[in-house]
Amino acid sequence: MTTSLTATLDVPQAPLRDVPALLGRCRALVRPRLAAAIGGLHPWTGEMSAYALGWRDVDGTPDPDASEGKGVRQTLAVLGAEAAGADGRAAVPGAVAVELVHAFSLLHDDIMDGDVLRRQRETVWKAYGTGPAVLAGDALFALAVQSLAETPGPHTGEAVRRLCATLTELVEGQAEDLLFESRPWTGPDAVLPEQYRAMAERKTGALLGCAAALGALLGGAPAETVAALDLAGRHMGVAFQAVDDLLGIWGDPAVTGKPVHGDLRRRKKTYPVLAALSAEGPASRELAALLEAADEDAAPRAAALVEEAGGRAATVAEAHHHLDAARTCLREAPLTEPAALSIESLLDFLLHRAS
Amino acid sequence: MTTSLTATLDVPQAPLRDVPALLGRCRALVRPRLAAAIGGLHPWTGEMSAYALGWRDVDGTPDPDASEGKGVRQTLAVLGAEAAGADGRAAVPGAVAVELVHAFSLLHDDIMDGDVLRRQRETVWKAYGTGPAVLAGDALFALAVQSLAETPGPHTGEAVRRLCATLTELVEGQAEDLLFESRPWTGPDAVLPEQYRAMAERKTGALLGCAAALGALLGGAPAETVAALDLAGRHMGVAFQAVDDLLGIWGDPAVTGKPVHGDLRRRKKTYPVLAALSAEGPASRELAALLEAADEDAAPRAAALVEEAGGRAATVAEAHHHLDAARTCLREAPLTEPAALSIESLLDFLLHRAS
Repeated sequence: MTTSLTATLDVPQAPLRDVPALLGRCRALVRPRLAAAIGGLHPWTGEMSAYALGWRDVDGTPDPDASEGKGVRQTLAVLGAEAAGADGRAAVPGAVAVELVHAFSLLHDDIMDGDVLRRQRETVWKAYGTGPAVLAGDALFALAVQSLAETPGPHTGEAVRRLCATLTELVEGQAEDLLFESRPWTGPDAVLPEQYRAMAERKTGALLGCAAALGALLGGAPAETVAALDLAGRHMGVAFQAVDDLLGIWGDPAVTGKPVHGDLRRRKKTYPVLAALSAEGPASRELAALLEAADEDAAPRAAALVEEAGGRAATVAEAHHHLDAARTCLREAPLTEPAALSIESLLDFLLHRAS
Repeated sequence: MTTSLTATLDVPQAPLRDVPALLGRCRALVRPRLAAAIGGLHPWTGEMSAYALGWRDVDGTPDPDASEGKGVRQTLAVLGAEAAGADGRAAVPGAVAVELVHAFSLLHDDIMDGDVLRRQRETVWKAYGTGPAVLAGDALFALAVQSLAETPGPHTGEAVRRLCATLTELVEGQAEDLLFESRPWTGPDAVLPEQYRAMAERKTGALLGCAAALGALLGGAPAETVAALDLAGRHMGVAFQAVDDLLGIWGDPAVTGKPVHGDLRRRKKTYPVLAALSAEGPASRELAALLEAADEDAAPRAAALVEEAGGRAATVAEAHHHLDAARTCLREAPLTEPAALSIESLLDFLLHRAS
């Protein structure tokens, strides 16, 4: 499936080699300040935060086996500054803030979604309890805004306003996502594909856009450059979510670590399903009947019907459209070459992933 | 008990008449902007927030019977500006922010503490579910910082830094409070009265201090005035907590709405108990043995022992000390008369309360 998705999305392979090195370079740049911020937390919320970030095991000892996140947001922040012609170090306070916000949102979302595993480890609420996990998320949230607000410099006020607006968008996106669960599969209250896209832009795109925009802003970029990077990040988030949805149904369980047709078994309202349901025709109607019957064993048949009704192709097209739109944003903005190309490589890397 | 506490604290009665009118005046000043902020939330988190604030019933209809909070924090913010010689309206963005932070912290604390009732109504997590309540708290948190950060004016940056530092303190205070629960009653790991006071300053005092300080800051007050009001609010919070602890053991159930000796039945580590346990003597030792036996029926005997070991007197002295310290802060700062007196009246009102 990875191959076919990549082929359909027409992703160039050449620059992908550099992305792990790029992620490593930006991690090295941001880590000292991020670690210092976490180190300043109350010992208890600090321990839970280090666990959430994949730095520590549940008993507080360093965990070399834990898988950290890729650090996409900190990388986008650093590249945002560099693309604006500034030193990547200018972006570090923004990079720290967006990584903290990301950790906060995963932590609280896992509570709300009842998810027990993340990156092959117990989620924070599962490992420490719901109450402590709420508290650890609050600590990360407060630290994110505080660390940015205490950054000296002429752009701090605008940066804080952007971060706060993004936080509100994140919460709105999560609210929509939770509400979608209780909406019907069909009829006037059914979730439309464009409503799903708007949710994904808030829940995933807003923070990616904020990351790149904060980097540029702290690097002294003009408002249009900041806006272009914000928009590129938003398209990136929507494309990213579309790929996530494809993997959630047709991804290779050996690679994703998730069951085959997992999102269909969990009856998640994802883009492929919503696109299939919004289409006309017998496959769409049979899919609706199948989903309303809530039979978990019907997941393979549902996957076939989603594909037959055009949901898979529509989602590939959705990813493609937003990938192109992100590229256009990047190419039309006055960005410095190596950093702009690195952002495109990162984009390709993320959409090419198999897990 | 109310009478004896008041008598012991030597609280003047005369200015108390004005406090309800004062609270009402400040509420009227702040409400439009607070309501507009809540009105801008996502409809779902907005509904839960309005419920949390006591404005709406659980089905979203206006609830005239719901009891709102007193609005102490918004009042302190307005008085902070007025005491600095500014128009109280200058404080409104700060007043909105501290009321939102207060609502956020009650909402999340109720989840962590498992409390099912607040102001005679179901808590938000009880009424809407834990996940939605986490989300509603996050929405209030984000809105608090965002609304302040978007306030035009020369003092916004400093105001946001103060609010963020306070948020971190609140979370630290809640962390300590939760951790106290699992610490022993006696021995080297027992909670000391001064550790409890430090927790109360963070959990209760920091936001009261922030409220008054933000008002002064937004009103253009010099740094020393802002600092004096912050410190006065912190002392007020510690005194407030001491009174709360007295009421939690010896308050009149008909007035507090809580069971007699409630805090002892729930085995809460409050100042009177910790002070009694840290004293020498047979009553202290008998109390320790009784608490370690975890017998709920022993609450009346425990209350008598707390008193015999000096815990009640120590708590009255604690309240008195911080009340005096708050008054000293107010009297030594260059504050305008009517507002400074109003803050003192508010202080007396809060410490004189019976519920």
